[in-house]
Order: sequence, then C-alpha cells, then structure tokens
Amino acid sequence: MTAAEACPEPERVCVVGLGLIGGSIVRALRSKGFRGTIDAVVADDDEARQARELRLVDEPFTDIAEAVAKATLVVVAVPIGSMASVFASMADALPADAVVTDTGSTKLSVIREAQTHFGDRIGRFVPGHPISGTERSGLDAGFAELFERRRVILTPTPETDRDALSRVVALWRAVGAQVSEMDGAHHDEVLAATSHLPHLLAYTLVDTLARMAERTEIFEYAAGGFADFTRIASSSPSLWGDIVTANHDAILPVLDRYIGDLEAVRAAIADGDRDTLTTTFTRAKTARDGFAAGKA
Amino acid sequence: MTAAEACPEPERVCVVGLGLIGGSIVRALRSKGFRGTIDAVVADDDEARQARELRLVDEPFTDIAEAVAKATLVVVAVPIGSMASVFASMADALPADAVVTDTGSTKLSVIREAQTHFGDRIGRFVPGHPISGTERSGLDAGFAELFERRRVILTPTPETDRDALSRVVALWRAVGAQVSEMDGAHHDEVLAATSHLPHLLAYTLVDTLARMAERTEIFEYAAGGFADFTRIASSSPSLWGDIVTANHDAILPVLDRYIGDLEAVRAAIADGDRDTLTTTFTRAKTARDGFAAGKA
Ligand SMILES: NC(=O)c1ccc[n+]([C@@H]2O[C@H](COP(=O)([O-])OP(=O)(O)OC[C@H]3O[C@@H](n4cnc5c(N)ncnc54)[C@H](OP(=O)(O)O)[C@@H]3O)[C@@H](O)[C@H]2O)c1
Ligand SMILES: NC(=O)c1ccc[n+]([C@@H]2O[C@H](COP(=O)([O-])OP(=O)(O)OC[C@H]3O[C@@H](n4cnc5c(N)ncnc54)[C@H](OP(=O)(O)O)[C@@H]3O)[C@@H](O)[C@H]2O)c1
Repeated sequence: MTAAEACPEPERVCVVGLGLIGGSIVRALRSKGFRGTIDAVVADDDEARQARELRLVDEPFTDIAEAVAKATLVVVAVPIGSMASVFASMADALPADAVVTDTGSTKLSVIREAQTHFGDRIGRFVPGHPISGTERSGLDAGFAELFERRRVILTPTPETDRDALSRVVALWRAVGAQVSEMDGAHHDEVLAATSHLPHLLAYTLVDTLARMAERTEIFEYAAGGFADFTRIASSSPSLWGDIVTANHDAILPVLDRYIGDLEAVRAAIADGDRDTLTTTFTRAKTARDGFAAGKA
Repeated sequence: MTAAEACPEPERVCVVGLGLIGGSIVRALRSKGFRGTIDAVVADDDEARQARELRLVDEPFTDIAEAVAKATLVVVAVPIGSMASVFASMADALPADAVVTDTGSTKLSVIREAQTHFGDRIGRFVPGHPISGTERSGLDAGFAELFERRRVILTPTPETDRDALSRVVALWRAVGAQVSEMDGAHHDEVLAATSHLPHLLAYTLVDTLARMAERTEIFEYAAGGFADFTRIASSSPSLWGDIVTANHDAILPVLDRYIGDLEAVRAAIADGDRDTLTTTFTRAKTARDGFAAGKA
C-alpha cells in the first residue's frame, strides 16, 4: 500500500441530479462528517439556493461540464433515460483521473451508454446501484439514513480500474452502506425479479381497480395490507417507464413466468383445487418468513 | 326509545376463537373499560390458562355449547372453513334472545351457513367483517388497538333484526371501529378486489421467486419495497385457502380482469410502447396517491 492509498486526499465529489438518491447521498456525507468537498448539478437557481441554505452542497452548478471540471469523483444520480445525455455533457470536461459512478436501477443499459460516451476512459467508470429507496422523488424526499446498513451493488466490467472501484466502495461505506459486487447482466436479472416485477404488479393492480366502476368505494374499504402492497405504485411513472424500458430483456422472462404461475393459481381456484392453493400459499409463506427473518 | 335501550344491560359477550381477531376484540374491550362479562371458547387448557393470566376473559370454555349458554352476544372469530361446524355446535344451546355475529373475511358463504344452522333464529345473526388485520395469527398476535378508527362492514340481510344489528354496531363502536353497512354480495366483490386479489398476487410472486434457481440470492438483494409488497404473503395459508375457496365467484372475474391488464402491460413492454406504460403508471400513481391522502 502506498502512502497515498493509506491516507488518501479527501475527494471532491460532484453529484449530478439532486433528487431522492443524489439528495440523500449529500445529506448522508454531511451527517457522517465527510471531510471532502461536495458540489452538485442542480436543476435551476431555486434548487441551487435550497441546496445552499440546507448546507448540503459547497458549490451548486447548473452546467454539467463546469460542475465536473474540478471533481475527483462524480456520482450520476439521474433517471436511466437521462444517463446518456449527462455522460455526453461531461465526457470532455472530466479531469484525467476523475472517477465516475452512477446510481441507476438498471446496469447493462447504463454500461452501454458509458462505453459509448467515455470511450477509452471507460476504466474510470464504476456502474453502481443502491438497493434502497422510497416511492418519493426530488430533493425534499431525501434523507441521510437512506443507505444505512442497506446494500449497494457495484457491477464492474473487466475494463474497470481497481483503484476507481475501491474509491466508489469507500464512498458508499462512508454513507453507511454494505457494498456487493456482481456482473451487470446478473444484477439486471435479480432486480427484474425483486424490484421491477413487483412495481409492475402494483401499478397494474391499482390501475385495474381505478378503472372499475365502483373505484372510489373500493378504495374506501381497502385496509393496511392494500396500503403496503400498493405503496410502490406511488413511485414516479417516468422514472419507472425508463427502468422498465431499459431492462425489458430481463423483465419479460420473469414476468412470463409469473403470469404462468398466476394462471395456475386461477385454474386451482376455478377447479376448487384447495390442495394446490394451500401448497402454493405455504411455500410462499415459508419463503417470505425466511426473507423477513434474514432482514431482522 | 325505551328505558332499556337508553341504558342497556351490559352484554355478556362470548368470543369463539381467540386468535388474532378474537384476541384483539377481548383486549380492546378490556382496554376500553367494557362493563360487561367476557367469556371465550379457547382451543385447550393451555390457552385457557393464558387467557386467564392475561385477564383477557372472565371464563374460558373448551366446549362451545357450554360457552354460549349464558351469552347475550356471541362473536364467532374462527376461520371461514370452521364457521359451519361452530354454528352447528352452538345452535341448540343459544339463549332465545342471544345475538350472534361473525368476523369472517367473506360474507355470502357465512350467511348461507348461518341460514342452514340457525333456521328461524336467523334474524338474531348479524354478518360482519372488520377491515383490519395483520399477516399474523393466534392469540399472541392480537392487540387492543387493531380496530381503532378502522372500518367494520356489517352485511345484514332482510331477515336481520334491527335490534340485533344495533347491538353489534355498539360492540364495534366500543372497540373504536367505524361501522358501515352493505349488501353481502357487494361486500364480497369489493373485498375480492382490495384484499383477496392482492393476497393472491403476493403469494404467487413470492412462490414464483422461491422456485427460481437463484432464490436465496434473489431475496438477499430485495429491498424495502419488496418487503412491504410481500408482507401479506406471510399470512396464514389455511385461513387464506378458506377465504379464496369461499369467495371464488367474486374473485375470478377481478382476477381475470387483472390478468388481462397484466398481459397488456407485458405487450407494451415487448413492443417498446413507452406511452402505454407511462399512461398506466400515471393513472395508478394518481389513484394510489389519492388513496393515501384519503387515509391520512
Ligand atoms: N427512487 C428509488 O427508489 C431509487 C433507488 C435506487 C436507484 N435509483 C436510481 O437513481 C437515479 C435517481 O433516482 P431518484 O429516485 O433520485 O430520482 P429523482 O428523485 O426523480 O431525481 C432525479 C434527479 O435527476 C435530475 N435530472 C433529470 N434529468 C437530468 C439531466 N438530464 N441532467 C441533470 N439532472 C437531471 C432531476 O432534476 P429535475 O427534477 O429538474 O428533472 C432530479 O433532481 C435513477 O437512475 C434511479 O433509477 C432510484
Ligand atoms: N387475519 C386477518 O387479517 C383478518 C381480518 C379480518 C377478518 N378475519 C377473519 O376473522 C376470522 C379469524 O381470523 P384470525 O386472523 O383471528 O385467525 P386466527 O388467528 O388463526 O384465529 C382463529 C381462531 O379460531 C380458532 N378455531 C379454529 N377452528 C375452530 C373451531 N372449529 N372451533 C373453535 N375454534 C376454532 C383457532 O383455534 P386453533 O388455533 O386452536 O385452531 C384460533 O384461535 C376468520 O374468519 C378471518 O377470515 C381475519
């Protein structure tokens, strides 16, 4: 280990996109006593004033190229559909050694955009995804504890520099997260199953009920189970439109598997096949109880 | 109003089935300072001792006929599949004026069983369903606040005595609930949509994922959204086997509508039809936000 690695200079972090995730990263860095500098790309002068008043950022910028020009570590926390344009805006302005990471909910599509826009600097790009969030969006939705003891998945490619990777690991550890690594394609499959599919099912359920004639009354008699089940249907439609569009290759197979299983449950109900229902429900309860115990 | 109605004698309540719902009713009555007597039918001597130690019931019985013989108001809080045998066990032992109500999650099937077993005493039976619960079961799962400001739906039939109805309304108000009335068939349709369908979707999702090869790892990377979405999949498989079996007539049409809508979402993903996705997600978010605001 060199001396520089043992006592690295504090980073000059630049967060691009001060929404739920970006806003939570800067809040968490502040609350953990981060010694470096925090710059951010904000939407407009209003957001710049707000970010300054909350003492969240040292210097807010509205221009991406200007914002990243002095950064040592850039965190891109914009919707999946904005990644390409943000990468394009910053590519030529980045200092030679700067590390870039992202927080996008899908990884293969982001890696492809990074390869296109960063060219032979791709080794400095570390694809990442914090496995924590809420159904809310925007700067006001963020909070410092969002990543505390939660997982962050990094999906380095064979081209990723080890030193860039370890600096992004250090950033996430600094905000309280536990970092895992996996292959980008595998990430997209796992998240299609545990996150993207549930969002699709919740959105579809609420929409199905909302389009039924008696909908006002239906929602009036919905209880706590319904509230929890559908909470994710309050998530940003455009953010999720981006995610589902970007990850359709991984989503379709697990969605098809789910539809097949739901058809089987439907058949069991129609046939009065109580055994199949009980077996299915019991297998699910066992797995869900195991999941809950693992989280406890 | 007669003097007896203005100052009614305190009820001698007998709760049959001291699980989540029955156990919460007796806890709530106690914590609200209920002046009457609380008896209960318990599973065995162990549960009798526990109920006595917790001062939840005045007299625990293991025999149903014996338990109801002195009751003025019987609350049947057993699984849907046990309603018929419980009604049969108590019918001949009930005092002439005693009122009987139930807490079952489906209503038409319970009304049919009551008509069969109570015969020309059916006017004293008031079908009911508290719209509150959790995924847990059993006496230990109950708590006094379960019904606080939550709805209870009563589904009287043309045969139901008005005085029996008002006494059941008074019981639920005494534990903090808000009482609504509706037709039994309508209840079963509304609850099929807001409760039974979400349970089926959550059970099926967890089962789909549990049967995928990488399941341990999949659950490891699931976050808060998944935990909330699948909480109801930890509910009792036998309780829910009963509910789905009893209410299949109302469940199948809304399940079919849902599967159709999910197929449309699948087609939009496969076709890259972003507009349909955004429209669906936006309609859902609007409805879900409205629901959340209504609950707040
Ligand atoms: N929400 C979650 O639970 C969650 C969890 C893990 C990962 N993620 C991922 O993290 C990223 C950010 O999500 P979020 O929830 O923080 O979304 P958000 O609250 O909507 O914030 C997104 C931010 O990016 C800004 N932005 C959008 N387009 C931009 C552009 N072209 N240039 C500069 N800034 C731009 C937005 O500004 P305006 O408001 O002015 O458009 C906003 O401040 C997404 O890729 C998402 O997939 C989200
Ligand atoms: N769970 C919810 O969220 C919820 C919400 C609203 C309404 N409900 C309805 O309320 C009723 C009770 O549900 P729960 O959640 O309280 O269930 P639970 O916790 O499983 O309790 C059911 C109780 O009934 C007893 N029991 C079962 N069969 C019996 C029989 N033949 N004779 C006497 N006692 C019997 C059980 O004793 P053992 O344990 O010894 O079998 C247990 O104490 C069900 O009809 C359910 O549909 C449930």
